[in-house]
Amino acid sequence: MVVYSSGEKGASVGAAKSREGEALPALSGARFRVRYLLSGDEPAARRKAEDICLEQTVEFPADLVPAGVVRDEIVGRLEAFGQVGPARYFADISFAVETAADDLVQLLNVVFGNISIKPGIRVEALTLPQEITTRFRGPRFGVGGLRQTLGIALRPLISTALKPMGLSPTALADQAYQFAAGGIDIVKDDHGLTDQSFCPFSERVARCAEAVARANTETGLKSIYVPNVTGPAGLLEKRAEEARSAGAGGLLLCPGLMGIDALRFLAEHEDIRLPVLAHPSFTGSFVTAAESGISHAVLYGQLMRLAGADATIFPNYGGRFSFSREQCAGIAALCAEEMGGLRPILPAPGGGMTADRAGDMREVYGRDFILLIGAGLHRLGGDLRRNAAQFVELVGRM
Amino acid sequence: MVVYSSGEKGASVGAAKSREGEALPALSGARFRVRYLLSGDEPAARRKAEDICLEQTVEFPADLVPAGVVRDEIVGRLEAFGQVGPARYFADISFAVETAADDLVQLLNVVFGNISIKPGIRVEALTLPQEITTRFRGPRFGVGGLRQTLGIALRPLISTALKPMGLSPTALADQAYQFAAGGIDIVKDDHGLTDQSFCPFSERVARCAEAVARANTETGLKSIYVPNVTGPAGLLEKRAEEARSAGAGGLLLCPGLMGIDALRFLAEHEDIRLPVLAHPSFTGSFVTAAESGISHAVLYGQLMRLAGADATIFPNYGGRFSFSREQCAGIAALCAEEMGGLRPILPAPGGGMTADRAGDMREVYGRDFILLIGAGLHRLGGDLRRNAAQFVELVGRM
Repeated sequence: MVVYSSGEKGASVGAAKSREGEALPALSGARFRVRYLLSGDEPAARRKAEDICLEQTVEFPADLVPAGVVRDEIVGRLEAFGQVGPARYFADISFAVETAADDLVQLLNVVFGNISIKPGIRVEALTLPQEITTRFRGPRFGVGGLRQTLGIALRPLISTALKPMGLSPTALADQAYQFAAGGIDIVKDDHGLTDQSFCPFSERVARCAEAVARANTETGLKSIYVPNVTGPAGLLEKRAEEARSAGAGGLLLCPGLMGIDALRFLAEHEDIRLPVLAHPSFTGSFVTAAESGISHAVLYGQLMRLAGADATIFPNYGGRFSFSREQCAGIAALCAEEMGGLRPILPAPGGGMTADRAGDMREVYGRDFILLIGAGLHRLGGDLRRNAAQFVELVGRM
Repeated sequence: MVVYSSGEKGASVGAAKSREGEALPALSGARFRVRYLLSGDEPAARRKAEDICLEQTVEFPADLVPAGVVRDEIVGRLEAFGQVGPARYFADISFAVETAADDLVQLLNVVFGNISIKPGIRVEALTLPQEITTRFRGPRFGVGGLRQTLGIALRPLISTALKPMGLSPTALADQAYQFAAGGIDIVKDDHGLTDQSFCPFSERVARCAEAVARANTETGLKSIYVPNVTGPAGLLEKRAEEARSAGAGGLLLCPGLMGIDALRFLAEHEDIRLPVLAHPSFTGSFVTAAESGISHAVLYGQLMRLAGADATIFPNYGGRFSFSREQCAGIAALCAEEMGGLRPILPAPGGGMTADRAGDMREVYGRDFILLIGAGLHRLGGDLRRNAAQFVELVGRM
């Protein structure tokens, strides 16, 4: 994984003429850079690299591109090219920051819009200069803010999900109470709970928020309830506001289902101001095929952080899914390393986690992560509060 | 490709008890069905099928799932299983319609949320009963509405894109005028044009809409200008309303970037009421890997139609991309066939199309499609109006 530490300036350009003879405004010269991994022999990989430069910007054959600013600055620029393995090459391509407009959607469009449809191209790394990172508010809480909210200075944070789908709001609120009373820091909805007739959003959120608040009053602890606000496009803001009013301490969102920019919208919203946890539902196709898509680290680490997630949930290595230890470590690295001054965020590895794996995870993730435990708490017998307390004690000794 | 023609009813159930002893409301018994293709030998494929039933609903180990409605109705149900090729099996799994709440986002979450992250699982077909399709307005115009709007009874519709990125609004408006004056039915923004400093949304849309209107006045034809309203999550409605006010005749959206439900939001919006064209940017990772993701036909045909696209753009076979003739025909089939009374929509194959391939496309797509031509019109020399008119004449003779 190569991640560049700073942006780069192209040759500075003045006003130039388009083919139609009209003056174009000068571009800043600032560029962002993408490392693509390309499949094929060297000539094929080079053709892919040249194609990306055109396809992601002008979408026009090279010989028809107007001379001047369009050809010199708008078209992507191949900055470096080399072999990384058998029939596998990298190409570093830079794009003018102006092509990405001022927003995340258009940035993604330039990075991987049309070429997502061409086989054998994978986004491996993304280097964003200050000209782009300053356009984003980024995480409002991040590692420090979440620790402060929860009153946990050092140990990994602990989260579990309310489940299974099919339980009523009352039954889930009872679970929420037991988990919070047992000391779980973050009690979140399972991502499959939205607004089903058997478990309506409003009733679930009201009951679960009340249950966690009641547990906090009794124990003196600071658990938060994090409902899932994923749902129809026009209802995101309404559900988030309702959750906040009901006393939710954070929000869960599935950017794969709603668009990564919905996460940015929620994280930047000045009236909501709650920690946001990103859930990976519906994003798997970007990462599961080794030769296409987007690297685990860029998708779950860098892009979720840029969009403003305070924590990013992903399947832990060794669980029910197929992420490797190295891929998970790559995500964690991009949650933490310097990125235009944006706050570091918490990786939240989940899926198939059990208490006995906590030690190895500590090695991979350090202290700043969220231990996401699911069925493991149910597996230990019927007393969820006791199971939770035992697990919290275990983590406290890590 | 198997597509079931109707929904199916499960055993009817009455009120039942959750593990917590509380009455759950009865489910309707109506279920939707997904055909998954699974990689591996038979035992591995069977394990995948059983895993999908749990992972996409309760996300809970089988032995911990509460008896009653949750186990009997909420958990996915394996309806059929069989071999389709070497180390390749299908599994037809049904889910209670209630698990999908009332919306597209949660439907997608159940169909392919967490299991998108597990390798070797591909959504091949989706069968939606009336209980689900009636929740959607679907395409407002569809084939008939678009033909009526454009005044074209029989021949394929013709569209081209304003490009390349880097031209000013004035230069693009000049292109738009020439294309419209030459008789192109649908003059759309290239999907890379959003709101860049060198080509701001408001100015581009105003100038291009005016240019197309002027051409229509001069020729008596009915071209429409279709601007790209893809952009930040909170600005979709605003851009669409602005486009409508400026005189746009349709809207282009990239659901891969903004979420498929953003398309539904736009198509159903009662104050906007313009034809919507879906563009495939950023969706490629769902289809390029043969053993994972979602089939071309379901993604670009069925889901875009369900969300309300009036036309669905995708890369044509034989162009710069890699779709096969069969995959394209599959998309076209799901644009047209009976689907809970939703209007049929227009496939809009694009990418690398040139005039001389029109005949073969007519064989694959019939009459009801949009011929999307790009650089081909520029390739023929500098007079875009004449090139457009020649192309329109060619298509008229098809």
